[in-house]
Amino acid sequence: MEIFVTMIPEQIQKFIDNFSRLPSLGPRLATRLAFYLIGLDKNDLKNLESSLGDLRHLSRCKQCFFLKGGGNLCAICANPKRDKTVIAIVEKETDLISLEKTGQFQGHYLLLGELPGRGSLESSQKLRLEHLKSRIQKELGGKIKEIIIALNPTGAGDFTAQMIKKEFESLAEKITRLGRGIPTGGEIEFADEETLGQALARRN
Amino acid sequence: MEIFVTMIPEQIQKFIDNFSRLPSLGPRLATRLAFYLIGLDKNDLKNLESSLGDLRHLSRCKQCFFLKGGGNLCAICANPKRDKTVIAIVEKETDLISLEKTGQFQGHYLLLGELPGRGSLESSQKLRLEHLKSRIQKELGGKIKEIIIALNPTGAGDFTAQMIKKEFESLAEKITRLGRGIPTGGEIEFADEETLGQALARRN
Repeated sequence: MEIFVTMIPEQIQKFIDNFSRLPSLGPRLATRLAFYLIGLDKNDLKNLESSLGDLRHLSRCKQCFFLKGGGNLCAICANPKRDKTVIAIVEKETDLISLEKTGQFQGHYLLLGELPGRGSLESSQKLRLEHLKSRIQKELGGKIKEIIIALNPTGAGDFTAQMIKKEFESLAEKITRLGRGIPTGGEIEFADEETLGQALARRN
Repeated sequence: MEIFVTMIPEQIQKFIDNFSRLPSLGPRLATRLAFYLIGLDKNDLKNLESSLGDLRHLSRCKQCFFLKGGGNLCAICANPKRDKTVIAIVEKETDLISLEKTGQFQGHYLLLGELPGRGSLESSQKLRLEHLKSRIQKELGGKIKEIIIALNPTGAGDFTAQMIKKEFESLAEKITRLGRGIPTGGEIEFADEETLGQALARRN
């Protein structure tokens, strides 16, 4: 976008440069967004600015590493109605949110962070697993009911799942993964071989 | 997204609510964006926040109504190399930028603002046209070389173009509109009848 530097006011150029680096935005959408925002009421714009700024004041839950506003624990870990003896290990915040949306999970989580493309986990991720281990040993009687490995059904997910299964074998009555198969509403005709093979193997 | 209010920290919920109202974002992308932003370095986040805030300090060029950072005129109107006797009337800032990108236009602009879906112009748009009229009469010798009506080839664009042609008849040697036809790289087979009809009528 360099050629516009002389024509577009500096503030807009800076906005476009900064925002077009965000995922799924890109220069075209960032430009559209800039002019849309400029057309807004100054108060609405101030509101957006402060809600962006507020993100800087978040921290992570000491227990599950999900995000929280204040206090020591996130809203899930702090909720006494949730079952702390069933723990789902997820990769990303958005995965956790998707699981919450189902309304079918009442346990706790461990947020692992995005898996590296290949090879073993990052040291911060290993620490989170160690943290869960010692929590089970010290606070949850040494053995919980279930660990649900809710990692993506990809190479990296499978690899990590194997490792977690081995490491937590003695710490949970069962260790499960999310079911695999044809997505609801999907069509057998268009399912790839891998998915269809998994659907067949896990038929029920 | 109401059901997450209890689970997602308030700051994130507020961000998602506010940003998902922006065009082309929506709740899914706003959520993704929120967690991406939280993962950024605090300085990068501060940078984005201030580049958003800087948009509040823009104002409009007194002459063409495009945006400017400081001074009285925008960078285009203030540029002595540009030809003030050729004026393109555009609807949106992004249209102006698209024309600048071609590198083929060296004149001035009048930014009209988004056309109402139907009927006549808004009063602020009529004022902008009046402003151009009096500028031609008082500062540009009563008649300029050309007015290019660069409005979209839509019903509203055509309607407004007719009106402008009539009003500015005596104030410009010629009044033109952008060419219509098959887009470069487009295929005749897939052009709609209207476009193909225009392409035929305007063959050259």
